[in-house]
Amino acid sequence: MFKKRALQMHEQWAGKIEIVCNAKITNREELSIAYTPGVAAPCLAISEDVDLSYKYTRRNNLVAVITDGTAVLGLGDIGPEAGMPVMEGKCALFKTFANVDAFPLCLRTKSVDEIVNTVKLLEGNFAGINLEDISAPRCFEIERRLRAECDIPVFHDDQHGTAIVTLAGMLNALKIVDKDIHDINVVINGCGAAGIAIAKLLMSMGLEKVILCDRAGAVYDGRESLNREKMEVAQVSNLDKKCGKLSDVIIGADVFIGVSAPNALTEEDVQSMAKDAIIFAMANPVPEIMPDVAIRAGAKIVGTGRSDFANQINNVLAFPGIFRGALDVRASDINDEMKIAAARAIAEIIADDELSPDYIVPDVFDKRVAIEVARAVADAAMATGVARLESVCV
Amino acid sequence: MFKKRALQMHEQWAGKIEIVCNAKITNREELSIAYTPGVAAPCLAISEDVDLSYKYTRRNNLVAVITDGTAVLGLGDIGPEAGMPVMEGKCALFKTFANVDAFPLCLRTKSVDEIVNTVKLLEGNFAGINLEDISAPRCFEIERRLRAECDIPVFHDDQHGTAIVTLAGMLNALKIVDKDIHDINVVINGCGAAGIAIAKLLMSMGLEKVILCDRAGAVYDGRESLNREKMEVAQVSNLDKKCGKLSDVIIGADVFIGVSAPNALTEEDVQSMAKDAIIFAMANPVPEIMPDVAIRAGAKIVGTGRSDFANQINNVLAFPGIFRGALDVRASDINDEMKIAAARAIAEIIADDELSPDYIVPDVFDKRVAIEVARAVADAAMATGVARLESVCV
Repeated sequence: MFKKRALQMHEQWAGKIEIVCNAKITNREELSIAYTPGVAAPCLAISEDVDLSYKYTRRNNLVAVITDGTAVLGLGDIGPEAGMPVMEGKCALFKTFANVDAFPLCLRTKSVDEIVNTVKLLEGNFAGINLEDISAPRCFEIERRLRAECDIPVFHDDQHGTAIVTLAGMLNALKIVDKDIHDINVVINGCGAAGIAIAKLLMSMGLEKVILCDRAGAVYDGRESLNREKMEVAQVSNLDKKCGKLSDVIIGADVFIGVSAPNALTEEDVQSMAKDAIIFAMANPVPEIMPDVAIRAGAKIVGTGRSDFANQINNVLAFPGIFRGALDVRASDINDEMKIAAARAIAEIIADDELSPDYIVPDVFDKRVAIEVARAVADAAMATGVARLESVCV
Repeated sequence: MFKKRALQMHEQWAGKIEIVCNAKITNREELSIAYTPGVAAPCLAISEDVDLSYKYTRRNNLVAVITDGTAVLGLGDIGPEAGMPVMEGKCALFKTFANVDAFPLCLRTKSVDEIVNTVKLLEGNFAGINLEDISAPRCFEIERRLRAECDIPVFHDDQHGTAIVTLAGMLNALKIVDKDIHDINVVINGCGAAGIAIAKLLMSMGLEKVILCDRAGAVYDGRESLNREKMEVAQVSNLDKKCGKLSDVIIGADVFIGVSAPNALTEEDVQSMAKDAIIFAMANPVPEIMPDVAIRAGAKIVGTGRSDFANQINNVLAFPGIFRGALDVRASDINDEMKIAAARAIAEIIADDELSPDYIVPDVFDKRVAIEVARAVADAAMATGVARLESVCV
């Protein structure tokens, strides 16, 4: 029934986004200003100073949502056309939550070179690039190259959006259990786009004791057959080179972060963790462990990706405000400082006396979130020298 | 003052188009249908049948306006960012006149291969491609290759839009002077994108006596240093192989069509033409000959590209309705029959008893135009087997 209703609604919308015209064109004079000959004036101005494209065209508020359709939701490689409902949904959320104009472009290629080249050819139309649902490990190289070669921010939401909201939830969860982020042990199960991004963001916060696990168990420097990204992260995580399965390395851990598979974490695993364990079980729709099971096994706080449980770790808390803040100061990048500022802003929406094991992240419809995230991100951009405007322009 | 006002308005609009969200997302249930997990249903449906992208996403109404910024207005090669105000204007006109969603993409390349490849990578997002302001002769190869390789219509408006509206004007002008299109002599001055497209469209209507002129004079089969497109058109036009300057070949002509340069046609040239001469002097902003001068020299009917003279030959009479019609029947191409149908529909807006030398094309704000053009184009698409729907769906 739910599936049927989703199809009905998508047929009724016939597209969740629409392109409208902001210029009134009802008589010859209006036409001559919006189009020829009047339009020549902004064209010439921009040809003399490309930055004026932010003043005279929609570029100032425009983000491209780019995918190749290779890792759409949990559905895998379903192709560019089939990825479009998700990309339109993303654009709908950008507009609804932060008044960002976002346009979806699904590319008919899986080639890293072609994706990078296409985005670079399109760069001048946009103020930011949101990469979406591109499979690992290609997503890492695509983002790395585009960040290096583009003058506008490039942000792979599956990596960083998830990392930021997880960090926000963790900051609040640590307050409740009264543990310091510098002291804790974290185990991340899942070593794809999200897992690696979470590890990197936590480490950039000063957290030292992180172990990543993939299907073969703990990732450590020197383990066989690691891809480039795992090898890189192995050099800075799991410094004691612990090996073994998840059930071996989870013993004594303070935090479990799952971006892996249904039921990957057992009751016994949770029982072996440190006191007041924190669990983020974000596999969708079936989490690594069900919240009630984890609590029964001794966990203090559980977050999932699902809206029907408490503590939903949902990217929509992050990406609209992050791009809003980046666009407002015309940032050239979204760097770690901006990501951390976003996570802190999300966490701080909840006052200390409101915090509880069932309320560590704000509701996705809390209107304060995007506003505060945008402000924090814009401030961090200015503080780190990637803002091209000296104050928020909107 | 006019230039200042155009800049002010463009700054105020900060983009003539905007992307809005059609899906109401105000609570968890709505979110779960527009985005995860509900969105998986249309994704899976499209992955099984790509045609359903027209049902469940905006593709059904979406046209890309593509340029490389090499031939923007009369400004020449000003680059992709500087071309954007024109492309946004085009999109604004698409929406205003025919409710077509159009999105502008300005590419940072002049390479024919890269432009063709980029459009092909993006094809799955759109129901049609409008090429715009790409310089000749590259525009010919780009359009030819894309028409051959894409499953959606590809239309270079600078060529065909101008040709269609010129033909519409000519059909009505010939009624007034009571000449048959099969009998007349036509001289086209200007052998770029528009000139060649006009010649081809007139010849596809059965007109035999056409001479094209470029800066070196009349184009004929065997003339030196012709590019590929001129060589092709030389094989089917100017069959008597007349040579000489414009002033030589214009003698006795019934129709002059200028898509060339200011003041390219003299009073003496007009005096040498046949009785009841018809002049389309479409160089902008200064036409090949001013209307009052042409009339004084004996011309019966004069059209220009300007809105401040009678008989404005304006592409906006054609492209919105043409794409509306093509989208309504999900056409795979915009072929000559559809172009001719559009020209006839534009001409027939004006009843015979309303026709006059100062009224051969409808006003651009005549609301009947896009509706009638769309209907005629959709019918022609169905009649010629390029419509993928059997009836108009909207």
